[in-house]
Amino acid sequence: MIVKNDLLGYQKYIIYQDTELFSFSTDSMLLANFATINRKTKLVVDFCSGNFPIPMYLTLKTDAKIIGVEIQKASCKLAQMSIMENKLEDQIEIKNADVLSIHKEFGPDMCDLVLCNPPFFKINENSNLNQRQEVTIARHEVLITLEDIIKEAAIILRQGGYFAMVHRPERMAEIFILLKKYQLEPSRLQFVYPKMGKEANHILIEARKGVKKEANLKILAPLFVYDENNQWTNDILKIYNYNKEE
Amino acid sequence: MIVKNDLLGYQKYIIYQDTELFSFSTDSMLLANFATINRKTKLVVDFCSGNFPIPMYLTLKTDAKIIGVEIQKASCKLAQMSIMENKLEDQIEIKNADVLSIHKEFGPDMCDLVLCNPPFFKINENSNLNQRQEVTIARHEVLITLEDIIKEAAIILRQGGYFAMVHRPERMAEIFILLKKYQLEPSRLQFVYPKMGKEANHILIEARKGVKKEANLKILAPLFVYDENNQWTNDILKIYNYNKEE
Repeated sequence: MIVKNDLLGYQKYIIYQDTELFSFSTDSMLLANFATINRKTKLVVDFCSGNFPIPMYLTLKTDAKIIGVEIQKASCKLAQMSIMENKLEDQIEIKNADVLSIHKEFGPDMCDLVLCNPPFFKINENSNLNQRQEVTIARHEVLITLEDIIKEAAIILRQGGYFAMVHRPERMAEIFILLKKYQLEPSRLQFVYPKMGKEANHILIEARKGVKKEANLKILAPLFVYDENNQWTNDILKIYNYNKEE
Repeated sequence: MIVKNDLLGYQKYIIYQDTELFSFSTDSMLLANFATINRKTKLVVDFCSGNFPIPMYLTLKTDAKIIGVEIQKASCKLAQMSIMENKLEDQIEIKNADVLSIHKEFGPDMCDLVLCNPPFFKINENSNLNQRQEVTIARHEVLITLEDIIKEAAIILRQGGYFAMVHRPERMAEIFILLKKYQLEPSRLQFVYPKMGKEANHILIEARKGVKKEANLKILAPLFVYDENNQWTNDILKIYNYNKEE
């Protein structure tokens, strides 16, 4: 069933979702907020865009052109509806395509920022794949792996361009090794904790193409999602209320 | 000048320091507290022990034998004085030796836990080396590098044994890559922030030899050193008041 949701909770943007498909989650908002946008940012590409929460959020931070790449046609249709309804069609482009080999379509060194909220889970004998296929594709590395994503990002980014990704803590060692393999230099890290005193459940990582600044890797202040009363913290409320007019 | 200090702040242990040498700091206490000790822990080796704050702290957590390896003779002399004064000579052994190639002396697969609070800084054209040579050796990679340390630890640890290190955030990518190179699998990470809202200034990392459990890497709750009134937080007070009698 297709439903209309409020992307940010204050009626700024409508986002269409299908209850049978993968729904966008807080980590997409955190990633879009975390990514570096500056005055050199002219073209942004979002990999594995789903129903486009990240491109929509980014319009609040930048006037740059934003291309979202999503392999699932049903998700692209939802995105199309949201983009029309929010009148974002001049800024956001929907590309219904496979991220695998996307550089052949885009060419190298073509964009300033690549974001990705990828499928988090490897496929192994313990994978719970008894879900709808559309949900499995969004959550598990069925169609694309972490390495594929990092490799494609490294090609299409211009020198000095930014790669920003959200992922699970247990994949961290692998992420560092793959970034190194494709000459992306980690520049900023932030850990997301569900609440004080708990282990992190997400990591936000930024790396730059061809910038050798190991000595400058920064670990930002931790982000707590809920406070002791199970309410969103001020940090999270601030992220949701992001407004480029401010 | 040699001075007598209180290791933990409650007169449990005296530690001798030389104001002309490198003084122990909070990160050594955090590392000693962070390291995993369990009932299988029979032999512990601490690399780059300085004046032995880590071996001394560890006696509060375990009855295992603890060997500290320190290349600087003057630091070993201070350690000798502290160990005698605190009557820890049955548990702590001082090895005045170079960690480089220490496996030739110890042999492989000989211990359960290796700790290291290493020199943090690479040598480059910007290094401020205008300090006393003893301090430079403790702070900069003059005599030993990160790779040397990880390599030696990987050899002397038994299968399943633990490696625990404190380091600076900017070396993180390199640490992950070197751990992988020497088949040490990251198992726990904790980030240390001087206070809420600030960037991390230290990382605590644990890895295990020959244990392939990538899916289990845990990022522990963040550690804040000072509260908003610039007093030690309860977490830090708890670490300092660690007491095996409790």
